[in-house]
Amino acid sequence: MSSQFGKLFKISLYGESHGESVGCVIDGLPSAIVIDFDLIRARLDQRKPDSSGLTTKRDETDEYEILSGVYNGKTTGTPLCVRFVNRDRKSSDYLESGRIYRPGHADYTGAIKYEGANDPRGGGHFSGRLTAPIVFAGAIAEQILMTKGIEVISQLVSVGTLQGRTLEEMDDQAVKHIDKLKYAIHPDHSEEFMEEIRKTGDHGDSVGGVVETMITGVKAGLGEPFFDSLESTLAHGLFSIPGVKGVSFGAGFGLSRMNGSVANDRFLKNSKGDVITATNRNGGINGGISNGMPIKFDCAIKPTPSIAMEQETLDFDTFETSVLKIKGRHDPCVALRAVHVVRAIAAIAICDQIFIGRGINGNV
Amino acid sequence: MSSQFGKLFKISLYGESHGESVGCVIDGLPSAIVIDFDLIRARLDQRKPDSSGLTTKRDETDEYEILSGVYNGKTTGTPLCVRFVNRDRKSSDYLESGRIYRPGHADYTGAIKYEGANDPRGGGHFSGRLTAPIVFAGAIAEQILMTKGIEVISQLVSVGTLQGRTLEEMDDQAVKHIDKLKYAIHPDHSEEFMEEIRKTGDHGDSVGGVVETMITGVKAGLGEPFFDSLESTLAHGLFSIPGVKGVSFGAGFGLSRMNGSVANDRFLKNSKGDVITATNRNGGINGGISNGMPIKFDCAIKPTPSIAMEQETLDFDTFETSVLKIKGRHDPCVALRAVHVVRAIAAIAICDQIFIGRGINGNV
Amino acid sequence: MSSQFGKLFKISLYGESHGESVGCVIDGLPSAIVIDFDLIRARLDQRKPDSSGLTTKRDETDEYEILSGVYNGKTTGTPLCVRFVNRDRKSSDYLESGRIYRPGHADYTGAIKYEGANDPRGGGHFSGRLTAPIVFAGAIAEQILMTKGIEVISQLVSVGTLQGRTLEEMDDQAVKHIDKLKYAIHPDHSEEFMEEIRKTGDHGDSVGGVVETMITGVKAGLGEPFFDSLESTLAHGLFSIPGVKGVSFGAGFGLSRMNGSVANDRFLKNSKGDVITATNRNGGINGGISNGMPIKFDCAIKPTPSIAMEQETLDFDTFETSVLKIKGRHDPCVALRAVHVVRAIAAIAICDQIFIGRGINGNV
Amino acid sequence: MSSQFGKLFKISLYGESHGESVGCVIDGLPSAIVIDFDLIRARLDQRKPDSSGLTTKRDETDEYEILSGVYNGKTTGTPLCVRFVNRDRKSSDYLESGRIYRPGHADYTGAIKYEGANDPRGGGHFSGRLTAPIVFAGAIAEQILMTKGIEVISQLVSVGTLQGRTLEEMDDQAVKHIDKLKYAIHPDHSEEFMEEIRKTGDHGDSVGGVVETMITGVKAGLGEPFFDSLESTLAHGLFSIPGVKGVSFGAGFGLSRMNGSVANDRFLKNSKGDVITATNRNGGINGGISNGMPIKFDCAIKPTPSIAMEQETLDFDTFETSVLKIKGRHDPCVALRAVHVVRAIAAIAICDQIFIGRGINGNV
Repeated sequence: MSSQFGKLFKISLYGESHGESVGCVIDGLPSAIVIDFDLIRARLDQRKPDSSGLTTKRDETDEYEILSGVYNGKTTGTPLCVRFVNRDRKSSDYLESGRIYRPGHADYTGAIKYEGANDPRGGGHFSGRLTAPIVFAGAIAEQILMTKGIEVISQLVSVGTLQGRTLEEMDDQAVKHIDKLKYAIHPDHSEEFMEEIRKTGDHGDSVGGVVETMITGVKAGLGEPFFDSLESTLAHGLFSIPGVKGVSFGAGFGLSRMNGSVANDRFLKNSKGDVITATNRNGGINGGISNGMPIKFDCAIKPTPSIAMEQETLDFDTFETSVLKIKGRHDPCVALRAVHVVRAIAAIAICDQIFIGRGINGNV
Repeated sequence: MSSQFGKLFKISLYGESHGESVGCVIDGLPSAIVIDFDLIRARLDQRKPDSSGLTTKRDETDEYEILSGVYNGKTTGTPLCVRFVNRDRKSSDYLESGRIYRPGHADYTGAIKYEGANDPRGGGHFSGRLTAPIVFAGAIAEQILMTKGIEVISQLVSVGTLQGRTLEEMDDQAVKHIDKLKYAIHPDHSEEFMEEIRKTGDHGDSVGGVVETMITGVKAGLGEPFFDSLESTLAHGLFSIPGVKGVSFGAGFGLSRMNGSVANDRFLKNSKGDVITATNRNGGINGGISNGMPIKFDCAIKPTPSIAMEQETLDFDTFETSVLKIKGRHDPCVALRAVHVVRAIAAIAICDQIFIGRGINGNV
Repeated sequence: MSSQFGKLFKISLYGESHGESVGCVIDGLPSAIVIDFDLIRARLDQRKPDSSGLTTKRDETDEYEILSGVYNGKTTGTPLCVRFVNRDRKSSDYLESGRIYRPGHADYTGAIKYEGANDPRGGGHFSGRLTAPIVFAGAIAEQILMTKGIEVISQLVSVGTLQGRTLEEMDDQAVKHIDKLKYAIHPDHSEEFMEEIRKTGDHGDSVGGVVETMITGVKAGLGEPFFDSLESTLAHGLFSIPGVKGVSFGAGFGLSRMNGSVANDRFLKNSKGDVITATNRNGGINGGISNGMPIKFDCAIKPTPSIAMEQETLDFDTFETSVLKIKGRHDPCVALRAVHVVRAIAAIAICDQIFIGRGINGNV
Repeated sequence: MSSQFGKLFKISLYGESHGESVGCVIDGLPSAIVIDFDLIRARLDQRKPDSSGLTTKRDETDEYEILSGVYNGKTTGTPLCVRFVNRDRKSSDYLESGRIYRPGHADYTGAIKYEGANDPRGGGHFSGRLTAPIVFAGAIAEQILMTKGIEVISQLVSVGTLQGRTLEEMDDQAVKHIDKLKYAIHPDHSEEFMEEIRKTGDHGDSVGGVVETMITGVKAGLGEPFFDSLESTLAHGLFSIPGVKGVSFGAGFGLSRMNGSVANDRFLKNSKGDVITATNRNGGINGGISNGMPIKFDCAIKPTPSIAMEQETLDFDTFETSVLKIKGRHDPCVALRAVHVVRAIAAIAICDQIFIGRGINGNV
């Protein structure tokens, strides 16, 4: 129930941060797809922490093993299970004396929900490590989308109060370049952003950010009215990513401050005779259905709760105020790596919608 | 697929704006609930358009008929079908010569998706009229939640660039008062807001707004990690509401601009010995699971696309630029009425999550 | 949850026998299908009771009203709601003094499950009347299947201990003829069967039967291994039909008595060069997936529990043994009419499977 | 889609017979359950092939590894992934020259469906090996059911034309004894049955059988009308088991030959004051809902398609008739081992229904 997503292209997640492994089962893959292992490797490497000081120092090679569903390099069409063995498991980095649940984390809520039985080490099943199999599945979804001329581009468009250039403001070349970067930031301000992140980490603090995504190549007609609208499906997946606290489409909350005369994207014809809109404040979606313009959305990522700075909070054994000093190696700005998870989720969601549309209407 | 929502408390929508009726089937209602018809009537009346000039002038009495699922005033536990007959069907208000699809609406996307076969009158299945059965179902969900001490309060917290007081900044009395209002705006600025809306309508334009919601009484432990997190489930439903273009929890996009040292909600004990957090920037949800604090989220509602003002757009028969002048009676600020749909969706989603949690763990 | 079926082609049932109406919402219909109202009418008429003495005497015209989802005679692609108003509601035929729950019926189990709150009249939501909307939806599914050259034929192959000719033993002409009959029995023994049924009814008793179904035109490759095998999906729907107590594919329970050397259907090539099997004991399904041969299954229908004969049973108020004498007008052999419900369910299930296969693999 | 089962207690299967491993993810387990590893081991051992000549000779130890979801011996409440490494992988036993698809198997249908991309070795994803993780999950479901006083007993009640004693005809002691046997046959005829199986295997043939199941302790009120009736849910799972070709409840197909005056199970009160029925021809289910009597059903298992005897069939490369001589080690009567898979599926399905009922109605 909780860790399954999708109607036709379905993924079922498993794993704890300090358990044997994490992984997922992907059910609903078309058969005979020649898997692009290079793309999978590239996306995993983009997501992976490193020693740059910009991310957690946890050393995971993100090696994976495919347990089923691939034969002679092609998808069998039967369920594909992938497993990422957990190697760098420094439990001591995470356990404090007594039970001082980390503020902003799922330590407390998980303990209540699971009556104390869940694995707390490293965040257990709530750990960001679970995003590795999500990125794996997303890379396969991307591959399917590319056969339809659909691309998903994500970038870090802001860090704290520093604002960067949006994808819409960039030329194609810049967009293609950002897609391949580990730190998906436009060169014009990547120095500034990374400096801010490093500095924040040095202070023992963390900072939030916004991940912007643009999906090109989706023809008009994808999505369903009401409960399986593109926004609903995408948001359902996006809010499942640890750290996502806001999702908005097109001009998002800006639309709430606008007049209709400004917000409306009027239709026109471009030089090739295609139907386009003069503006794209609706982010490519009308009535839950794609209109052919790039689908655009932003995800607000909160600052990583685990900070080195001392925090005053409750000790759940004594119920006295206590000081928490988190050891370990945590992302100063998890949004930096969340970029690659957002891209993956978006690819999976769009892929599922395409299967649904194709299933009911025979085309798409 | 598209018009069904929920895992245990499930609703299945049907209807077109100018069809015979709109309604829904609710499947998964517990049996023997004495239906509070007064609450249902109150919520429907809150949602209903009127002649104030603040809403569309469409005259619907929102009379409904229960076709099944209620016997001797109590839920039977078998599916409940409710039907709202469409009475005020001025088709001429909606049809233009040729096919000039309204910018910002689903006219174009629906025509593409359904190959021109969908009912276009009044927006067809995309019409806001479909929110009447949603509000009906939400009122029943509210009733179930109230037996568990859970309340869902929604208000219009901003109109255009005018900002109002948040629910967190109000005392209990003010909150209870707002819950019953048709125009759910704090008295301190309701004049100002309504004036802005009226003025906008007089100019033949529309304006967006933000609906703020607070859910109290949910104990810690509700929701699932990852794909059935409270944020995912709520957002899935909320983005299904016509006009919703952004959803954020707690401080939302504000979190993306914060440091962790500020964003983290530290735990403490209140005078009654309950676990609470000093701040609530996470909106009552950690790791997708409730922590016992009020669940808080905002929905960005775009300005109604149908405006009286002339708009330049494409004629889809001639493919020439054409001027569109929409007749008819449209909400200058649909966010004003969306408040009651947001509340309904939130109640349904929380109710479903409670059933799921209770089903698996036997408690909640 | 309970009254919803299907992954892409989904139906959501509502209604009680003596409530206002029964009906369903069909969600997932392709758009732009010109509805064949004649076929719908024909199938409903086949299912409908009449005054022949072979069925219940309940007088229902089975008039229906489409509340949404059809515009200008074509499916809109948005949910289609159909409503069958209940006209002949002789409640007195069904109520006995005290609570003497009818043996074999859901009176007792429904009362326990729904804590006495369910509508008991006429069987409430458990009534066979709910099969009218199922037959409606099945006729639309049949229409879709016919565009792919797929036909679903069902007949009453046995009544009590009287055995008739199977569909496989008939020529095409006989099969086509049976498809249109209200009493779907081969002419060679229809007299004998109907005499048996009439006689049984005259004695105040009822008798069971077996409905045999053959689905032709399904190409190899439909269905999924394990949990969405063709057998699983079909059986899930078939066992939902009131009265079905057994489902078997191909030689069914006969296979349990065979050796593999006999049971195995060896492959060969026919004169047209198609792959066929020499025998079809597996009913056209291997490993849950169609092999191109006709899909064949049998449904065991129990005798109608409501018989005029006196029955000794428990009075649930006094907990004393009591004599039950059911008044009213009940089918002596409900299998006779179940034929048309079986056909409908099979069509819906196959249609859904085709959408699923087409969705994932882009073909079928 | 295909390899996922359940609404709340959900399992997601993966694996191919000759792939790295087979396993499943179980999502929806309550937390803090102390896992009974002995019961799991016992059920796996019951299912496992051995060298008795009564089963396939494939040597699998059925060792498994839990990759997540268990911590300190208790379920965490987060997804549990179990992995069974495939050790005895004699591919040569399964491959024939050219492509001579085995009659009765999924070789052909799988090749068509998956465009030849699926792993064919040992039956790939269609292999009976996939039933190992199902039995694992079933043992956990059994554990949950036992806390509610519910037991699932399955036995081999017939082999070929040899008929044995039913569970209803046995005393409690005999029933308890059979539950623990690897060859779940009543002592009175186990010699006879096993001799028949051995003899059949010696002839290079196989034989079918019927698995009978009885579920005790389920209180009245479990299940839903129509599409989530107990029969529908159970049958959906049972027909997913390789080899199952028929499922019937209570007197099953016998009901189709009965009169209602005989078939009806009249209600009465037993000496303890409980409501029971005088007979149980309906197998404990009325209107899809349990009535408190033991739930009883039979599964018809076809004879194993893989037989050593020569078979004439089609060569799919030359399209000429060819002789197939299957090497390898196959079950002469797979029904013997299917007993343990049937029990597992039944436990999972009942467990899921209990969660659903408890979720909606707060009790069960």
